[in-house]
Amino acid sequence: MDFFHQYDQLLSQEELGHVQRAREFCEGAFSESIFAAHLAGEAIPVEWIGKWAATRMLGLQAKRTHSGHEASYICKIRVAQEMALHGFAAAFCLNHHQGGVTRLSQTGTPAQIEHLLTPALRGELLLTSAMSELSGGSDVAALTTSATPVAGGWSLSGTKAWLTNGMVVSGLIVLARVPDAAGAGEIASFYVPLDEPGTFQRKEIMVPGARSFRLAEISFSEHFIPEWAAIAAPGAALKASMASVNAARVHVAAMCVATLQSALSEAIAYCERRQAFGKPLVAHQGLRWELAEVSVRLEAANALVFRAAEQIQIGGKPVSLAAQAKKFAVDTAIWGIDQCVRIVGATGASAAHRLNMHFAEVRLAAYADGTNEMLLDRIGRGLPSGYRN
Amino acid sequence: MDFFHQYDQLLSQEELGHVQRAREFCEGAFSESIFAAHLAGEAIPVEWIGKWAATRMLGLQAKRTHSGHEASYICKIRVAQEMALHGFAAAFCLNHHQGGVTRLSQTGTPAQIEHLLTPALRGELLLTSAMSELSGGSDVAALTTSATPVAGGWSLSGTKAWLTNGMVVSGLIVLARVPDAAGAGEIASFYVPLDEPGTFQRKEIMVPGARSFRLAEISFSEHFIPEWAAIAAPGAALKASMASVNAARVHVAAMCVATLQSALSEAIAYCERRQAFGKPLVAHQGLRWELAEVSVRLEAANALVFRAAEQIQIGGKPVSLAAQAKKFAVDTAIWGIDQCVRIVGATGASAAHRLNMHFAEVRLAAYADGTNEMLLDRIGRGLPSGYRN
Amino acid sequence: MDFFHQYDQLLSQEELGHVQRAREFCEGAFSESIFAAHLAGEAIPVEWIGKWAATRMLGLQAKRTHSGHEASYICKIRVAQEMALHGFAAAFCLNHHQGGVTRLSQTGTPAQIEHLLTPALRGELLLTSAMSELSGGSDVAALTTSATPVAGGWSLSGTKAWLTNGMVVSGLIVLARVPDAAGAGEIASFYVPLDEPGTFQRKEIMVPGARSFRLAEISFSEHFIPEWAAIAAPGAALKASMASVNAARVHVAAMCVATLQSALSEAIAYCERRQAFGKPLVAHQGLRWELAEVSVRLEAANALVFRAAEQIQIGGKPVSLAAQAKKFAVDTAIWGIDQCVRIVGATGASAAHRLNMHFAEVRLAAYADGTNEMLLDRIGRGLPSGYRN
Amino acid sequence: MDFFHQYDQLLSQEELGHVQRAREFCEGAFSESIFAAHLAGEAIPVEWIGKWAATRMLGLQAKRTHSGHEASYICKIRVAQEMALHGFAAAFCLNHHQGGVTRLSQTGTPAQIEHLLTPALRGELLLTSAMSELSGGSDVAALTTSATPVAGGWSLSGTKAWLTNGMVVSGLIVLARVPDAAGAGEIASFYVPLDEPGTFQRKEIMVPGARSFRLAEISFSEHFIPEWAAIAAPGAALKASMASVNAARVHVAAMCVATLQSALSEAIAYCERRQAFGKPLVAHQGLRWELAEVSVRLEAANALVFRAAEQIQIGGKPVSLAAQAKKFAVDTAIWGIDQCVRIVGATGASAAHRLNMHFAEVRLAAYADGTNEMLLDRIGRGLPSGYRN
Repeated sequence: MDFFHQYDQLLSQEELGHVQRAREFCEGAFSESIFAAHLAGEAIPVEWIGKWAATRMLGLQAKRTHSGHEASYICKIRVAQEMALHGFAAAFCLNHHQGGVTRLSQTGTPAQIEHLLTPALRGELLLTSAMSELSGGSDVAALTTSATPVAGGWSLSGTKAWLTNGMVVSGLIVLARVPDAAGAGEIASFYVPLDEPGTFQRKEIMVPGARSFRLAEISFSEHFIPEWAAIAAPGAALKASMASVNAARVHVAAMCVATLQSALSEAIAYCERRQAFGKPLVAHQGLRWELAEVSVRLEAANALVFRAAEQIQIGGKPVSLAAQAKKFAVDTAIWGIDQCVRIVGATGASAAHRLNMHFAEVRLAAYADGTNEMLLDRIGRGLPSGYRN
Repeated sequence: MDFFHQYDQLLSQEELGHVQRAREFCEGAFSESIFAAHLAGEAIPVEWIGKWAATRMLGLQAKRTHSGHEASYICKIRVAQEMALHGFAAAFCLNHHQGGVTRLSQTGTPAQIEHLLTPALRGELLLTSAMSELSGGSDVAALTTSATPVAGGWSLSGTKAWLTNGMVVSGLIVLARVPDAAGAGEIASFYVPLDEPGTFQRKEIMVPGARSFRLAEISFSEHFIPEWAAIAAPGAALKASMASVNAARVHVAAMCVATLQSALSEAIAYCERRQAFGKPLVAHQGLRWELAEVSVRLEAANALVFRAAEQIQIGGKPVSLAAQAKKFAVDTAIWGIDQCVRIVGATGASAAHRLNMHFAEVRLAAYADGTNEMLLDRIGRGLPSGYRN
Repeated sequence: MDFFHQYDQLLSQEELGHVQRAREFCEGAFSESIFAAHLAGEAIPVEWIGKWAATRMLGLQAKRTHSGHEASYICKIRVAQEMALHGFAAAFCLNHHQGGVTRLSQTGTPAQIEHLLTPALRGELLLTSAMSELSGGSDVAALTTSATPVAGGWSLSGTKAWLTNGMVVSGLIVLARVPDAAGAGEIASFYVPLDEPGTFQRKEIMVPGARSFRLAEISFSEHFIPEWAAIAAPGAALKASMASVNAARVHVAAMCVATLQSALSEAIAYCERRQAFGKPLVAHQGLRWELAEVSVRLEAANALVFRAAEQIQIGGKPVSLAAQAKKFAVDTAIWGIDQCVRIVGATGASAAHRLNMHFAEVRLAAYADGTNEMLLDRIGRGLPSGYRN
Repeated sequence: MDFFHQYDQLLSQEELGHVQRAREFCEGAFSESIFAAHLAGEAIPVEWIGKWAATRMLGLQAKRTHSGHEASYICKIRVAQEMALHGFAAAFCLNHHQGGVTRLSQTGTPAQIEHLLTPALRGELLLTSAMSELSGGSDVAALTTSATPVAGGWSLSGTKAWLTNGMVVSGLIVLARVPDAAGAGEIASFYVPLDEPGTFQRKEIMVPGARSFRLAEISFSEHFIPEWAAIAAPGAALKASMASVNAARVHVAAMCVATLQSALSEAIAYCERRQAFGKPLVAHQGLRWELAEVSVRLEAANALVFRAAEQIQIGGKPVSLAAQAKKFAVDTAIWGIDQCVRIVGATGASAAHRLNMHFAEVRLAAYADGTNEMLLDRIGRGLPSGYRN
């Protein structure tokens, strides 16, 4: 029984075709290229963005009227999982571009669609969300970036940090506080083009071993936002952001289980091949049990991720379940890949295996869309209503 | 979203009715009675067997022509889960009686059905399988109980141990070696009535805290088995036994997650009620995170158990998945109930809560249908074919 | 190298003699008797209190002028460990009696010594501390028991819970609030004799599997305390209680490691003896690794407990270290004994082994002198000063 | 109480001076330089070898007649720990050079001392042991490198792998099989100079994130070894290698606890400084408990490592204890540093902290002087004699 069969059962023939195309794209040159970049301590070559866009995958969930595929949530997950088998960072970051297009197609204003959609579909205009600031990831009350109304738009000042793909994006979806008369102000969101150097500064946040995320910090000093670029009105931005967080968490979780599945497969194959003390490693009972235990938790993570994904697919709002799935999938992936690296011995840490790349990259999953601590708090709040005798 | 909704989606209206009747049976007097028995260090009152039989639940999977319900596997699981919310041992042991009836109805010979089915359906004739011996649970090669052909049947000698419900059953399904000319012999199975005192001896295996399993050791000394009582021919018994082991493992796993769900609910309710340092326990972040983590792993176990159950429901043979589900569900239940007991403080170990009963009873799940060690070995053997790049 | 050699290196010849006498006392009839009591679901026979007192062990730390031995802290620990090898509850509870005598001899007033010391040394007058109340273990601000001044003493009202040996003690050291004019009041402590039935009520807190702790709840309704029975003045009681908590925590931790050492030894011996699949259990690599991992953490716990004990022995106040040692020793003992029970298979849960008794009893260590949650909070507060670059 | 006080109590004044000098050497430029190298994906600058040699630290355990300090084992450990607070790889690798000098001074022949000692003390001639081969680390029976007697010495052929400092050493202590007439042969050891290019080849084993170990694979093709370079005769080399393995394991374990202590201190300092939701991170109970739990296991590891080190210091052969200490210290360090990285949030993975460097480097400890799997096997063999009732 295939590892992904629960998901695939819910896909249409067309969607299965998308998954198949993603699989074919990833095998071969792509897979080798992203691994080589890791070994060189560099980010994934930027050319892959265009090649991925050329397969029309960026429009996976865009409307058909926008040349998209209107694929379902689970289809999107499966596409990302196919890539995550080869590399977590690649899957996370290339699919991140797809998220920007989807949002534009589904909720953009006509003006935004007109300005942005075509280049976005082509991978020429890359977007990312900008919520976190240096002073803290999830503490929204502490958000200090401000968008002050000026003629024809707003003037943006402040610094956003931990921007995925931040080194290559040409636009941000920024959450900023719009000051009111009383000096306080509510949070709105804006499309912020990064095409006027001089009023913004970008620098890489160096994360050794995980440069493919191209994390950046971008500072604005009276940076102009045109009127047509408004997204959510003051007071509405957080709600919109919250509405998508369940799906985002399960998406990350789904990539984590795929990467762990790949790591486990690689470790097992090595342990079948390699001999010690006169028999294959996998024939040593203690080692075999260690691998078996990884498979046990991997399957649990996979089943839980599917359960949460199914709820999102049918339009549910599985707040607790999505948080539980992400917490468990991330913990299991980090633990499980570490086990795989260690089980195969010192070679696991070397360039002879992709294990070490998986290990370095999947760790970043812990920070996306809620750290463990945020998730435990979120789950904790739902316990009394969720578990009643 | 209900904890059991994945399972319930696959049930017919009639089957949902069985689940509902089981739920109603368990609430109230039954639930109080089994807890009182635990506190008194005694087994569940034997009268509950007859009352449960009176609801016609023992025929849950028996053929309709035998007055059974022909309920599906997942229906059986859900009925057991409803009882496991109140007590694991009760659920395990009462449903164990149901297993004997099912086997009889589905695979018994006409003579066996004639002799045994009616009293079995009424809970008057209780059966259990007898495979393990004192010298070892799962090492079949070491099985020494023998059934020697004699006039009109066989003569049984040897000792069977770890018999669930062993103190109350009136018949066993015994695996025994039928000697051949060469002095070796293959393993067959027999229905062995326990109605001729003098040729068998029964004694309780004392398991403090878990006497409701009524574990017994039964020794035979030239005990007569009538001809009509043969079940599997020499060489065929183990295969039959293996065929049912996946379903049995997932069944146990399903009860484990139900009992943990109940324990977690009880702990949360207590932590909402109880104050310390000026606020409810659940308002203390550290404690709340501990409860949340239990919920995370519980949901993972539940989703994995469902995935395995679904495969069995559709007739699959999920050897690895069933073993993975049992390993994970048992580990999670034992760990999680322990967490619940400890989180609520010393009171958790006292008679004020059912937590301590759950904790003492669910531990026995680790030994039924394969210990962790057997499961890891089983899973380990399947790894190379199960996880391929 | 002996498991206890670090401790024993710090003992005098006389003290090593105490340890040796304790060892001899515990072997044989005592060890069998406490195990039989566990299997019967009863507390340890009360006669062992007198027999232990007859070895003059209750005066282990009493002054020589009071016929005591003035033994050091580590000697006391080692005596308790010798008993904990046979049973944790026995060690905890019999040594608890010794604690009452020590306090009396070292800090009692002449009147208290005159009234109480001789019967206490003989094990005829048993004492325990009474701090916890039903509404909460460690939340001192919520303490409601009151001692109102009356002619010739105080009048005590309120309920104390979770009293170790509570079913057999004839006196308590009670912490109670002495009301002031403003209606508030500070906490004082008193010796409270339990010899006037009618003004107090005692009932057992039923803890299945651990009745040897004889946990009780005792309620007072205008119970008279004579003037000579005052111990700490209002405002001073908590400080005195805090002064001894480090030593108490390490004491419990020391018994935990001894009980785990005993459990591991029992499991190893069984796995050497028992065959499966043609060789001893211990020859199966997976199982052997599981046992080895228990030994790894046991040795870590033992070394940490020793480090904390050494600090207390030399008069230090290792607040964090004592809390760390207790947290780790308790967690390791509960986990490790569970592993031992499970490794040996179903037999581990039965009356054939002492493992199950160890498992049921050592769990209570988690509640004595600070739950895990209290300890983490205590350790957490010390982190900034304890770990500086 | 200082984290290292148990160790320091056993040092002489002179030895405490060595520790103090090491501390001063590491602070400042050295510490910054090794961190910068990590961020750049490079090995530690090679110049530090000479500077460290200039402090005469390479002769720490050399004989006084060889200008060494004759420092004790625990002094050596403490020096390494001072460096490990700044970086694990630096500590491991610079102290590795010291090991070569010590062996030479203590057991070298007069000819070897004459040829090698002076440049070795100056850090001009660097040595490392070469035992592992590509086909397997610890499976000595599979060792294939051969040293065939030739005129004036031996001719070496084969490939050695996983050589610490392998990219910079100018000599190896090679274990090789000396063929006998029958075609088999026993294992001997040799000093093998790497000064004749043409008969050997060296290449880096790329380990992303841990290049400071300078791991290399070196192949020999009829490489000449002069007669005076023999170390252990055929049959004696493994015994010599085994004699030092306990001390080597505890040495690694001691550096692990130091690096974790440093990581925990860094995390705590950050959590005191950084605010979220209106208070410092460390004031959030859940997070504080996570940090506290790291401290608990760190202290356990530290105490266990000390216990094993003390045995080695007094000349014991703590085979099991050394293996237990290494297993626990490595596991705790890898787990604990991971916790620290994650607790501080995404910043923990970035160049703003040394945490990520510690995390990447300490993982290599798992492979030095016995993987977890080898250690569990070693410990497992000692269980029956080590834990007896």
